Parts: sequence; structure tokens; C-alpha cells
Amino acid sequence: MDTSKRIKELNVSPIRKLIPYAEQCEDRGIDVIKLNIGQPDIETPQEYIDAIKDYDGKVLEYVHSRGLNYFIDTIINYYKRFGLDYKFDDIIVTQGASEALMYVMMTICDLEDEILVFEPFYANYNNFADIVNVKLVPVTTYAEDGFRIPDLKTIEKSLTKKTRGVLISNPSNPTGRIYSKEELDTLAELAIKYDLFIISDEVYKEFNYTDEKFFSFGNYSNLKDRVILVDSISKRFSCCGARIGNIATKNKGVIEGFMKLAQARLSVATLEQHAAAALEKVSPEYIRETKRRYKARRDLLVDRLSKMPGVLTNEPNGAFYSIVKLPVDDAEKFVIWTLENISINDKTVLITPAKGFYLTPGLGENEVRISYCVNTDILSDAMDILELALNKYPNRTV
Amino acid sequence: MDTSKRIKELNVSPIRKLIPYAEQCEDRGIDVIKLNIGQPDIETPQEYIDAIKDYDGKVLEYVHSRGLNYFIDTIINYYKRFGLDYKFDDIIVTQGASEALMYVMMTICDLEDEILVFEPFYANYNNFADIVNVKLVPVTTYAEDGFRIPDLKTIEKSLTKKTRGVLISNPSNPTGRIYSKEELDTLAELAIKYDLFIISDEVYKEFNYTDEKFFSFGNYSNLKDRVILVDSISKRFSCCGARIGNIATKNKGVIEGFMKLAQARLSVATLEQHAAAALEKVSPEYIRETKRRYKARRDLLVDRLSKMPGVLTNEPNGAFYSIVKLPVDDAEKFVIWTLENISINDKTVLITPAKGFYLTPGLGENEVRISYCVNTDILSDAMDILELALNKYPNRTV
Repeated sequence: MDTSKRIKELNVSPIRKLIPYAEQCEDRGIDVIKLNIGQPDIETPQEYIDAIKDYDGKVLEYVHSRGLNYFIDTIINYYKRFGLDYKFDDIIVTQGASEALMYVMMTICDLEDEILVFEPFYANYNNFADIVNVKLVPVTTYAEDGFRIPDLKTIEKSLTKKTRGVLISNPSNPTGRIYSKEELDTLAELAIKYDLFIISDEVYKEFNYTDEKFFSFGNYSNLKDRVILVDSISKRFSCCGARIGNIATKNKGVIEGFMKLAQARLSVATLEQHAAAALEKVSPEYIRETKRRYKARRDLLVDRLSKMPGVLTNEPNGAFYSIVKLPVDDAEKFVIWTLENISINDKTVLITPAKGFYLTPGLGENEVRISYCVNTDILSDAMDILELALNKYPNRTV
Repeated sequence: MDTSKRIKELNVSPIRKLIPYAEQCEDRGIDVIKLNIGQPDIETPQEYIDAIKDYDGKVLEYVHSRGLNYFIDTIINYYKRFGLDYKFDDIIVTQGASEALMYVMMTICDLEDEILVFEPFYANYNNFADIVNVKLVPVTTYAEDGFRIPDLKTIEKSLTKKTRGVLISNPSNPTGRIYSKEELDTLAELAIKYDLFIISDEVYKEFNYTDEKFFSFGNYSNLKDRVILVDSISKRFSCCGARIGNIATKNKGVIEGFMKLAQARLSVATLEQHAAAALEKVSPEYIRETKRRYKARRDLLVDRLSKMPGVLTNEPNGAFYSIVKLPVDDAEKFVIWTLENISINDKTVLITPAKGFYLTPGLGENEVRISYCVNTDILSDAMDILELALNKYPNRTV
């Protein structure tokens, strides 16, 4: 019995693809430092755990497909801190940002419609698009200028009659870039000129290492009808395992359409939403401290990489990732070779080849994404291992 | 900004469509007895709640996309009780049976491929199929013979070159039928003869009011490669709000394909899986007592309905639903009319018009699905209200 053509053609997530090699290391007694995934090591707030423990319902029931009322209320309050005025009817709770993105694509795109993305982009975007038969069209950004969004004219070249929207991750996974107001203005102009939606994935907005306030796409008063925010508690409260996200939009048609999909899957986990509501009580110091820790890691990462000959890196100013150019023939081969050949004190390192973050063939071949979700001691060990691997790797190019 | 054509054409779940009318009743101070949804009123086992309370992880992390190891182990043990020999690699945990069904359809069907279903069927099946661009082809079953599956020749008429599988809910939502071994054999023969998958949604298998052991499609030794079981803890342990389901299949290609979809959405809620694993410790008496209660409700329902003139009902032998023919012109109009006009002691009743459980136009117009997830006192009140409504309804046909 054979499966469908579409499922056979679906690409496996590049982030998880190399895990079997890492498992082989572990079988040999080598500890693998995992800089490949965005799994924070920060403790989940006690408020989350306490709320679950205090839950006193006798029957664990479905909640409304839109989400749990009092959790939605906390989302509204949260957005107010960013100057965003979303009401109850503008929000739908989702099974993480993943479900939100898939369902948003379906809501705005028919089969074969197109969405612009800036490559390198979060690789699963392409899986979501494939799943719902939407085509992502990449506009390339370059390590050499910090992955800046190009000007309007350049972006316009990628538009077709089928373009329905622009999808952006801000702060960016995988580059760590926080886009400037000027870059966002370009996209705002584009959206108005060509009647496009803007899907703004802002799950990393709390991880902003600049001195400027984060500017959300929801802050544009002239784009209300076009902007769909995608959000999640996973990263900001270090609770990826909760699978709680949401969308927020002033577009009534989008809410109405998305609700049909939400109703089909009935509801999102009740207890997790109940606990997520309690996150409103978490002290602002929790986020400040988390940011301080990530910033220290970012500084260490940039410092170490900048001292490695032939390595090109930027200082990411948001999220907890960086795209790094390595002096190697092929980053995937290098990553596997490192797992198989390099260790220091029985430790090795797993990073993600960046090819999967690009759609244009040939791009990203010598780049990797490094996630700095580990503490500075471990990160320092990882940099020692990377440095050694680069020195010993037989197919260095520089 | 306009949404996609496909989302505008997607039908709203008929189960939730009438909720606004019920909300209007509640606004007027009328209590609505909800026989429209499959939300059990049975208490969730304490083991589930205790396991969550005992969780001592500090970081609520993603778990493996396949599911939490020790929860999968309990699923394996659970299946052994039904004579099913599934191994670790045959199982993937899902966000309820809903996600399982959508992803299974994608895994076995390309765009516009077809799956046979027996109407009336669980209405969301059609939403799932629409979402993933699969066409459900209905084979009609009839209230008059207890919704029995027709013979091979009749089913064969609905096959086309695009038919990829058969989807069955057993015990059936919405009819309450548990299919006989003979009926299942017909489907087994069909699957082998025409090289089809069988998707067997067995989430209600514990609710079997016959004296015979439940026969799972997984029990056919000659169909191993064709059968995909869909399951969930929602109904059997009264924890719909957990959103925990799974698939089980011996087909390696299906597992491999489905895993790509599972990886795209990263993981299923960690704490809910941790708690679901603890359900293994629940005494068998919990399920026995639950079954006794549902059976008493079933008996009351059938007794009352059989005494109402012009009402055609079957004795459902599984699940907790029944499809009932009413002597009215249009069941949807009748249900709304009842909400707006009939109450006894400030109580009224909401049932689901069955039209949405059929794909063939014109079928189910005078049928409703009644869910008996309430205790016998409330169910008795609901029957009083239904009886009164049928007596007073101006567009009675008999």
C-alpha cells in the first residue's frame, strides 16, 4: 500500500533531520550539545505550574473553539503593553504558532496562491505551505548586509498575480534580525500598493537586545485590515511543550474563515490555556532576566565566532539564533563530519545546516543556524568544539 | 482584504452551528439541555489530574514529534487488551483524533483523491477532507435497517479510479451502530480486491453495550498493511480537553509520511501526554461504571423515543449517539423552533439536525442526532421537552 505523492515529496524539517546522527553519538557515550533547536533552557514560570496544580474542574471538557475566555482576556492585556488594541473578537487561540501559520495560509490563499518570504526563513514555513498547497516565493537577503530587507523595487520583481501576502518573522528566526522601521515601512507600502496581507510572526518579540521599543506590524493604523499577527507563549515563557499560540487580526473575514478551521479541530488543550492565563501574573523581571541571559550568550557567541578565521557572522539583535557563514565546502557534510569525528571531553556539537532555510537552490550551502538556548558555559564548550572542527575539517575552503 | 475561496466555501460544523440560538435562550434565562455535543459529563479519572500535579520538570519542553515515549508504551499495552500487537514504531501521538484524521487523509491521498464513507457520518470528517482537498464519497446507510453497511456490490458502485480508502467510525458516531463481523468482512474484502486503505476511527470502542467483544480492524491479520487505526483518550476517559489522540498502523510508509507532518507541527502538549500515560493505572471499574451509566441512558432514550408517535429510532449498541427520524418537515427548523418556543420549568433542549451528517442532498432532512452525555434525570427532562415540542410543532408531517 503506497502513500500519496504529496506526502512523499514533502521535505523533512532540516532542524530535526540530523537527529539520528546525534543519537548515534549518544549511543557511543558522546554528549551532544544541541545548538540546533529553539528549546530554551530557562525555567518555565512557577505561575504556570501552580495554575495547573490549582485547577479544580472535575471534567476536563472541551472549551470554545476560539479559546478559553479568560486566557483571551490576558492576551488582550498583553498586547496593550505594545500599544496594540485587539479586542476579544480579534483573537483565536491555536495549537502553537505552527497551527496558526498553517490555518492563516489556508484562510488567505487558494491552491497555488503565493506568499512572499525573506530567505533565509524558518524552514517549517515551507512545510506548512506545502501542507496547505501554497507556494512560498523567496526574496533573498544576505549575510553580508545583515539580512536587511531589500528595497521596494527589488521585492516587486517577485510579485505575480497569485501573490496574496508577505510572511515575516520579526525578530527573525533564523537570522536574529529585528527589522528597522524603514524596512517595515517598505513592506507596508508594498502591501497597500499591491493589496496584500501581512502575516507577522512575532513570537520572539520579547527578545529584543536593542535600546528601541519593538515595533509590531499591528501598530500600523493604516494596515489594520491587512495584518495578521501570529504569536505563542512558547519562547517568551519557556513553555514550548504547552503548544499554545494565537492569531490576532482586525480583519473580520480572516477571523470568520479561521474559526471554521478552529471549529473542525474542536478546541485547544483546556488545562494549558488555563495555565497560560496565569502567566499574566509573572513579574516583568522574569522576562528582563531571561533577556539578560540571552544577551550574554549572544555576546559570547559573536565574540567567539568573530575570532574564527573565515567565519562570517552578524550580531543578531533579537530572538536567539544566528546564521553564520563557515569556511567549508558544504555545511551539512561539515555538521555530520563534526558529529562523527570531533569531541572534546566526550562532548560534541549539533548545529543546523542553513540550506533548508533557503528556497533558492544553491544558497545557504556553507551556512549554519546556531541557536543559543544553552548557558554560557555550555556555549563556550560548543565554540571550542566548533573551532576545533573547523581547524581539522578536511574540506575547508579558506 | 478578501479571504480565499476555499475558506469561504468551507462548511461550518453543523454540531456547533446552532449554538448562537442556544445562547439567546440562555440570555432569556432559559437553561438549555445540550444533547448536541459529545462532551461526556463523567468525571475525568483522578489519576490524570494527580499525574499533572506531580509533574516535576522545571522546563516545559517540546517532546519528540512522535510522542512521549512512556505514553506510547501505555498505548501499546492498551492495545494488547484488544488482541492488537502494535509496536513503538507503529504509533504516533496526535492532537486529538481530529489532527490524526486530517493528517492520515493527506498521507494516503493526493489532491482530489477519494475516500468512501458511510453516511450518516461524523460531520467533521467532511471538514477535514475539505481542508486537505480530499473528496469524501458517501455510501448511504438507512435508519430503517439500523444503518447497516450494504453488500459488496452496492459499495462497489461508489468506487472510482481515485478511491484510496474507506473511512469508518466503529462504534459509529452518529448512529451508535457497532458493525457486525460480517459487515467488517465486506470492507476487508473490498480493501483487498481494490487495493484500498481502511481508516478505522475507534475512539468509542469502550462503549460497547453488546455481549460480544469489540472487533477492531487491527485484528485482521491479512490487512496489516492497509489498516490505520485512529484513537483518542477523549471519550473513554472523559478528557476531551486534553486533545490527545494517536494513530496506529503497521504500514511503514504511512508512519514515515505522517511523521513529516508531525515534525512540522513540532510536538503534542507535554503535560497532557505525561498525564495520559497515568491513565494506565485507572481501575477497569472506571470504564465498566461509565458503560453502565451510558447504557442506562441509552435504555431510557430508546424507551422514551419509541413511545413518541411517528418517531423512528434504533437501539444504538455503541458510543453515545443515536440518529432519530422525527415526524417534522425539516429537522433544523424544528430544532430552532423548539429553542425559541418550548420550555418546561425554564428548560429547553438542543439537538443536532442530521442533514450535516449526510453528503447526498436531501437526506437527513427530518433526522436529528441525539447525544446522551447527560444523566438520566436530565435526559428524562429533555425527552419531556422533545415530546412537547413534537406535539406543538406546527409543521408536523405525521
